[in-house]
Amino acid sequence: MIVLGIDPGLATLGYGAVDYDKNKLKLIDYGVVTTQPDMPLPQRLKSIYDDVTALIERYEPRACAVEELFFNKNAKTALTIGHARGVAILAAANNAVPVYEYTPLQIKQGITGYGMAQKLQVQRMVKLLLSMDDIPKPDDAADALAAAICCCYSEAMGVNIC
Amino acid sequence: MIVLGIDPGLATLGYGAVDYDKNKLKLIDYGVVTTQPDMPLPQRLKSIYDDVTALIERYEPRACAVEELFFNKNAKTALTIGHARGVAILAAANNAVPVYEYTPLQIKQGITGYGMAQKLQVQRMVKLLLSMDDIPKPDDAADALAAAICCCYSEAMGVNIC
Repeated sequence: MIVLGIDPGLATLGYGAVDYDKNKLKLIDYGVVTTQPDMPLPQRLKSIYDDVTALIERYEPRACAVEELFFNKNAKTALTIGHARGVAILAAANNAVPVYEYTPLQIKQGITGYGMAQKLQVQRMVKLLLSMDDIPKPDDAADALAAAICCCYSEAMGVNIC
Repeated sequence: MIVLGIDPGLATLGYGAVDYDKNKLKLIDYGVVTTQPDMPLPQRLKSIYDDVTALIERYEPRACAVEELFFNKNAKTALTIGHARGVAILAAANNAVPVYEYTPLQIKQGITGYGMAQKLQVQRMVKLLLSMDDIPKPDDAADALAAAICCCYSEAMGVNIC
């Protein structure tokens, strides 16, 4: 079962694809999709939508996992992320891929067993769980992988609800 | 030249199509696209995207006009509107329709000649300019028509920039 994790952003959207089979995790791919600030908003959103659609077509994930936004960000930032998050979720919906949303606490809890874990602790666990040589970079990709792993564990425990 | 105005929202998205020809405005259509709060977010976004795409295919607008969001809203509201705004703008981009964004001040200034105009004054001018019997309802549709009219005037003055 392949899960595609997405950490949405307008300038940088992180993604991470992991395979979960017989209680074993395997890294498939990770990276970022970027758009330039000098591009008009509609073209940036189209670029993100097309890139996420291409990832879905390439990996045919069983599910997409997206982190719920912290609400300590300001309204302008939230609107900007909302644009990118909306088109990324739409790309999944238009390809009939279920989307699961997880709070940062759920992801930290799922990966490290501790909801108040630091970012670096989560990243170290992602590296360990996926047998990577280094901590995945940039942070957006690491966050996307963490969301994907959280989704795999939730699926294994039968707690995902569409 | 038909312009489609859009007032984005997740539960209620207002739209208004106007034709502008030889300095005359003509009302084509207006209304709202709604989604139910108990629907999962991906399905709500798909529904909005499909409905806006259908409006674009029906009216083949020369441009879409969208109001820029007030930033006195809280981050959670901004994120929610951002999702809907993102997929509505994507629908235009995927159909190669240019999108113009206007601040509330630009819309009020464009419609009434006064940037600090009250909502009711703007709605009365929309009614007058489009030769309607009543003020368009609901507010979301009236706001969408106001954005569309503002875009027509900007286009006529050659100030729209794609």
